[in-house]
Amino acid sequence: MLDHFSYGVQQLTFMQKYLVNIDHWNRTGGPIFFYAGNEGSIELFALNTHKQYYQYQSSMQALADYVELLAHVRQTYEGAEKSPVIVFGGSYGGMLAAWMRIKYPHVVQGAIAASAPVAQFTGLTPCEKFGQVVTHTFALQGQECVQTIRKSWDAINKMAATAEGRAWLSDAWRLCKPLNSTDDAKNLKSYLSDAVCQPMKFLKDEPKEILLEIFEGLSVYFNYSTTATCLSYESSMPSSLDDNGWFLQSCTEMVMPMCYDGKNDFFEPQAWNLTEFSETCVKKWDVRPEPYKMEQMYGGRNLKYASNIVFSNGLLDPWSSGGVLEDVNESVVSVIIPEGAHHLDLRSSERADPKSVIQARDVHKANILKWISEYSNSV
Amino acid sequence: MLDHFSYGVQQLTFMQKYLVNIDHWNRTGGPIFFYAGNEGSIELFALNTHKQYYQYQSSMQALADYVELLAHVRQTYEGAEKSPVIVFGGSYGGMLAAWMRIKYPHVVQGAIAASAPVAQFTGLTPCEKFGQVVTHTFALQGQECVQTIRKSWDAINKMAATAEGRAWLSDAWRLCKPLNSTDDAKNLKSYLSDAVCQPMKFLKDEPKEILLEIFEGLSVYFNYSTTATCLSYESSMPSSLDDNGWFLQSCTEMVMPMCYDGKNDFFEPQAWNLTEFSETCVKKWDVRPEPYKMEQMYGGRNLKYASNIVFSNGLLDPWSSGGVLEDVNESVVSVIIPEGAHHLDLRSSERADPKSVIQARDVHKANILKWISEYSNSV
Repeated sequence: MLDHFSYGVQQLTFMQKYLVNIDHWNRTGGPIFFYAGNEGSIELFALNTHKQYYQYQSSMQALADYVELLAHVRQTYEGAEKSPVIVFGGSYGGMLAAWMRIKYPHVVQGAIAASAPVAQFTGLTPCEKFGQVVTHTFALQGQECVQTIRKSWDAINKMAATAEGRAWLSDAWRLCKPLNSTDDAKNLKSYLSDAVCQPMKFLKDEPKEILLEIFEGLSVYFNYSTTATCLSYESSMPSSLDDNGWFLQSCTEMVMPMCYDGKNDFFEPQAWNLTEFSETCVKKWDVRPEPYKMEQMYGGRNLKYASNIVFSNGLLDPWSSGGVLEDVNESVVSVIIPEGAHHLDLRSSERADPKSVIQARDVHKANILKWISEYSNSV
Repeated sequence: MLDHFSYGVQQLTFMQKYLVNIDHWNRTGGPIFFYAGNEGSIELFALNTHKQYYQYQSSMQALADYVELLAHVRQTYEGAEKSPVIVFGGSYGGMLAAWMRIKYPHVVQGAIAASAPVAQFTGLTPCEKFGQVVTHTFALQGQECVQTIRKSWDAINKMAATAEGRAWLSDAWRLCKPLNSTDDAKNLKSYLSDAVCQPMKFLKDEPKEILLEIFEGLSVYFNYSTTATCLSYESSMPSSLDDNGWFLQSCTEMVMPMCYDGKNDFFEPQAWNLTEFSETCVKKWDVRPEPYKMEQMYGGRNLKYASNIVFSNGLLDPWSSGGVLEDVNESVVSVIIPEGAHHLDLRSSERADPKSVIQARDVHKANILKWISEYSNSV
């Protein structure tokens, strides 16, 4: 259904893709594990077909999709009618998982919400928090790294100011697309938030030295296979993640204010300017952001009356700044993974897993078992 | 906002009317009492202006309107920012009140849901229940009445079959618009569900005698002022209630199956035919009903995880068949008013009030005080 909440579009429908795995399906009421998708390709429905379609994209529509999909699954698979449903998700999908339980507790019995920044919205979290966590995470690799990065913005600005400087930087950093303007430098700077600190051990002062040092760090990121011929700074996202889709959502309801002071973080100072952001959105998508929408819809961290949700957050993950980091009530609980990055607990377990993520997964398991037995006792 | 959940209509807005009374406004965090409107004129927004507009009408849109309106009120009135909000409503408004608390517990602190048939939807309540309660309520006035009404359908059919019979009936019942066809007779029959039993004390068998008896009952309803010159059976609704608006809603999400067997109720037997109903809706509004929508959205009577709601129901009210008649949990409670009709508890108190409605209002008061102090302790 294109739109679940209005009847102004003549109940148009569109094809949507979902994946089902029944390898371990227990026909006698075994649980359904439902993974709430993210902003990537499988659920960014029809984004590339009709503009009209993706403009209907909103979190409430996504949740209503899930309600209908689950009703369909329950009718389609033998035994599924009696099954409890546990919803999972990470990042945006983690928010959807939590909100699914909050809004439709009669449809899903519990939710694992990993790295879900449900309070990363206007008025709920100071806009400088995110950058501070990023900086703190880098600082764990050494203060030299943080200081080098903090100095690098000026160094880039200096280089970008002259044709000769731009040529030098394009060459030194092996840029696929040489810098031709200060606008190119802007793009380069926004790409840089993905730099990696480890190799940067020495503090430099001279711009060129700083930038060569930064490039060492960058290389780990863009060229870990050592086969990349040049550094492409057009987009920091793997193309499958489709940042255009997220950009649109951030222009409607997913408005997440970010700002930097350059002192408590290593970013170039930048205020949060809603008006400017808003104008960009109107120009690009013909929509105006609704900065208070998500708090109004879902309550932010104020989840006192919710139940059966585990919020997990890795402290290395800057999105934890908008996450639920304390227990809300008896059955809405928080799990902290000090050594964890963005929803590490939802990734495959492996030898290198820190103890805290193993413990987090145990908490998930215990809660899921509790929710299932709670449900079995009630039907 | 025309549509709160999509961005396909370029965030169109429209004027909406609301009423505020601040005569007793307590600026130091006094409670806000919010009355959730019904299908009547004040909130049936723009129904008569643009077809596109009222097609956006849905319960979820109404709730999102309330969220925005309350945010506006909180910002506008001095002290209101710290106020708890208690939402009230009766009938459809009662459902909205309950659902408001269910979906937005961070916005409203409690709900009084009077005569709210939250389970009058497909699969949740047998379709014959409603008619049985109507019949039972009439039976309290005497079985003769019920039997006379039950026989009256055939009597009307017999009269309506011939020109002479139609003339007789038009005359005997002083119909404003004489019966010219069996279709007119159909309209007359659908009007008749509002007959009043009291004067009908004698059991008759002959069609004309039955119909004269029924007319005695009808006269109480259509001519209680004794000044009506004729009986108009075109619509049983006062025009301000705008049954067209309700008709549209019942064609989208508010599908309430009704059927009659003529044995356990006094109606002319009639099955519930979704297909036929659906076709009528497509023809009239170009929409197809979604019979499971309301259960999917709100859970029907399955409100285990809700909190702070009082559901009140009068047992004389046929809508109680789809109501919550038992406590759901500690803070979602049911109040029965045996002598009550449709949300009697929300009407002005008066001398003739039965004891049960006075007690119901006391339950409301006690719960509201509890919710308010719960809120004060939490902020």
